[in-house]
Amino acid sequence: MSKNAHQISLAGIKVSRHGEQPMHQQLYESIRGAILGGRLKAGERMPASRVFCEELGISRNIVLLAFEQLALEGYLVGRTGSGTFVANTLPDALLRIKSRKKEPPIHTELLINTEADINPLPLPPDLLRRNSTKEVIKPFQTATPSFNDFPFAVWAKIAGKVLRYFNLAHLGYDDAAGYLPLRKAIANYLRVHRAVNCTAEQIIIVNGSQQGLNLIGQILLPRGEEFWLEDPGYHGARAALINAGGKCCPVPVSAPEGLDLNYAIKHYPQARMAYLTPSHQYPLGGTMPVCKRLELLDWANKNHMWLIEDDYDSEFRYTGKPLASLQGLDKGGRVIYLGTFSKVLFPALRIAYLVLPTLVLANHFRLHKAMLDRQHPLLEQLILTDFIQEGHFTRHLRRMRLLYKKRQDALLSSLHLYAPNLTYSNMNDSGMQSLVWLPEHLSDKAVSELLRQEEIIAPPLSDYTVTHFKKPGLLLGYSSFTEEQITQGIQKFARLVNGLL
Amino acid sequence: MSKNAHQISLAGIKVSRHGEQPMHQQLYESIRGAILGGRLKAGERMPASRVFCEELGISRNIVLLAFEQLALEGYLVGRTGSGTFVANTLPDALLRIKSRKKEPPIHTELLINTEADINPLPLPPDLLRRNSTKEVIKPFQTATPSFNDFPFAVWAKIAGKVLRYFNLAHLGYDDAAGYLPLRKAIANYLRVHRAVNCTAEQIIIVNGSQQGLNLIGQILLPRGEEFWLEDPGYHGARAALINAGGKCCPVPVSAPEGLDLNYAIKHYPQARMAYLTPSHQYPLGGTMPVCKRLELLDWANKNHMWLIEDDYDSEFRYTGKPLASLQGLDKGGRVIYLGTFSKVLFPALRIAYLVLPTLVLANHFRLHKAMLDRQHPLLEQLILTDFIQEGHFTRHLRRMRLLYKKRQDALLSSLHLYAPNLTYSNMNDSGMQSLVWLPEHLSDKAVSELLRQEEIIAPPLSDYTVTHFKKPGLLLGYSSFTEEQITQGIQKFARLVNGLL
Repeated sequence: MSKNAHQISLAGIKVSRHGEQPMHQQLYESIRGAILGGRLKAGERMPASRVFCEELGISRNIVLLAFEQLALEGYLVGRTGSGTFVANTLPDALLRIKSRKKEPPIHTELLINTEADINPLPLPPDLLRRNSTKEVIKPFQTATPSFNDFPFAVWAKIAGKVLRYFNLAHLGYDDAAGYLPLRKAIANYLRVHRAVNCTAEQIIIVNGSQQGLNLIGQILLPRGEEFWLEDPGYHGARAALINAGGKCCPVPVSAPEGLDLNYAIKHYPQARMAYLTPSHQYPLGGTMPVCKRLELLDWANKNHMWLIEDDYDSEFRYTGKPLASLQGLDKGGRVIYLGTFSKVLFPALRIAYLVLPTLVLANHFRLHKAMLDRQHPLLEQLILTDFIQEGHFTRHLRRMRLLYKKRQDALLSSLHLYAPNLTYSNMNDSGMQSLVWLPEHLSDKAVSELLRQEEIIAPPLSDYTVTHFKKPGLLLGYSSFTEEQITQGIQKFARLVNGLL
Repeated sequence: MSKNAHQISLAGIKVSRHGEQPMHQQLYESIRGAILGGRLKAGERMPASRVFCEELGISRNIVLLAFEQLALEGYLVGRTGSGTFVANTLPDALLRIKSRKKEPPIHTELLINTEADINPLPLPPDLLRRNSTKEVIKPFQTATPSFNDFPFAVWAKIAGKVLRYFNLAHLGYDDAAGYLPLRKAIANYLRVHRAVNCTAEQIIIVNGSQQGLNLIGQILLPRGEEFWLEDPGYHGARAALINAGGKCCPVPVSAPEGLDLNYAIKHYPQARMAYLTPSHQYPLGGTMPVCKRLELLDWANKNHMWLIEDDYDSEFRYTGKPLASLQGLDKGGRVIYLGTFSKVLFPALRIAYLVLPTLVLANHFRLHKAMLDRQHPLLEQLILTDFIQEGHFTRHLRRMRLLYKKRQDALLSSLHLYAPNLTYSNMNDSGMQSLVWLPEHLSDKAVSELLRQEEIIAPPLSDYTVTHFKKPGLLLGYSSFTEEQITQGIQKFARLVNGLL
């Protein structure tokens, strides 16, 4: 201890002029030590600040700083007009910052109390749960690109380049609509390859198409109003639009043509929104013909209805040339086009995009996106921009289209060979999965569960059904498995399923 | 042309057995050419498929495939019982995939029609607009870390390492709650440094704290119910909770102690949620003392109220040791703790986290997060995990704490020197900005706008005010500017502001 140390006899409180810490900090710790050591008792009146100044030879500011910190932490309490006291209830056990090195026990006793105060989820939890966990890719997981064939070396090389110029300007907040050069690259791709009528200013980058659906619902669907949903159809869209306060109106799907427009108009003429997969109906696989598209657009225009065109996998069309988008036919500004890179690159990238029909609407979406989560992380956007601009994206698409077609052929020929008594959907001109029908007496959920126990993934069609569609079926994804894996998987699948027929 | 070519005399339609394309594709293109060339007229009946088979020597399947594709694209229409016809309205102009190389004009004539069908934003658009554009960092932009002092070389090196092992498993869907090793690293940091009572299973990674606030509002605030908001307070929280259907109840803030609890209980006893910044009230700067925290927790427990603890910048506390969190005092499972890496690392990272009080609640948030946008992108999560585990995070925090304290000193001493007639908030023991009061007769919005025109950023306090707080003031951020920039900026600031006093 230094020669200059002073001391308050009452409680052994001291500070050193040459200590390592600032004097108010020393004083704070010394008083705290006195309280914890019992030298200053709970409820006891503290000496006036003047006493500390005199006895320790320090300035009043130092004493006040220390007192303030002790009061903030609950060691001291001030009573107006009567001075400062040691608190009756000492907070130290509660406040000890460095004490929680071990994991605490979880509050199990609280469950009942708090559970009553949680809003319900928009869909049954077990349907949502399946899309919330880490996926292990096993045959015949659907909607998964072939990770083994992703040009990862190219991606990592571009990432390395981006990280070298990922400079100061890119660490702060960017445009909520997304990185402008990426939006330009996407607009260019969409105009050339998808006949989507757009500029970069109409595009909003979103965190996966699921966020796009939530944004559309929150911004364009008035609460309590009806929306059309293809039935069977994508449950992620159902969840997002119900969460936005919409009333789900399931509309039957005719297998070759998609949504049954006459049914929808007859039963739900008041609907303000429709969710559609016109290029490749999910999960049945039909394509909406042009004459029906024009009829739908006409209805939407006359009835102030918004149309969501989810173009989730139209890049993988194997016969004929790709069909033009609904958006490209829209003269009334009623279609919001939704595309994603999850299927054509990889899901963990989390980049999808919306194309809004007008700049006013795009700006509204930009503000709402900013309010929801400010913007998408930047690093992935920079890498993807270069990946598209350098031509890797369209090259990868072409390779995957050929590869997936071969895998589809392998799946269908294995099914014909090993499970000849099953029937299959004949709509195989695009996509990443095929549909296998089951005999009417079987529950597709039960068969899917039986297969899952044997390590075969085959989502049941009834998971996508709201009311109308009763035929049992299973979805088999082929895009991420080699022809050998497909043949072996179908042999196992057939052994299990043939016994049930 | 090959010797094997056949020809339909009627319209010059032909296919070649040895062509590069599959025969159905050739036939499709040849028929399409005949229609577009006027050799097959609109409304004309097509020859029966049998005629094509015979004349071209091809199988019926090939003809049907080509017809199907042409019908899908709107060139042919089938009439039941009477054959196939060339469509009356040819779709080609609409469907031409490769025609949109130029940017299209924007639909300006549609604005009025569609604008009526957009839901209103939760806050006035110009307040939201400021947080939706790319930020250019100029003195005295608030809440911005020092990008120049970010250890970017370390970050890029870890990214390079991560990209080498960013293997197949990381390209697919991950846990919606976030990458588990990152959640473990955060839980460990929070237990040791913030006395937050948690395990990795209670943590949900979100896309910035703004998404965290939206999630909390959607899951825990029943629509139409009241929430307490500090006034002045963070407008991002106001927007998110209003967007979730909540009714905003502004509660006055007493500068040294934060939210006025007595006022809140007296005026809004029915409120079901409170948004709080107890460690460092935003933007006034007070700290809620322990006795008030205990009182607040007691009220929340008895009244089934949820408390949001937004601990947005408590890492930067310059005097005394950091205060313990409200969450650490909570025995009833009523506090949702919200932390972010935007202020301590950089905003474009978009990683923030929620700590839920129970596993049931954490699981509910996981499902809801999956429904909103499935999960956060993975690459940033992997880099950040290593950055924390290798000790760079706490090292960077320590460096920034010292640096920002120096910058605060520079700001305050420059203000004293160059603008001696202004008064300042004396709560400078933590944070990234200081508060300067203006004389009552000045409008802080007008002064802020005047400064903005001279390239000085100083957000007005009234931007954060709902009803109660009427004193004009300006916020000056210091964390991202050198002492020289600060001195020069304050000289300019003083020249402009002194003239108004």
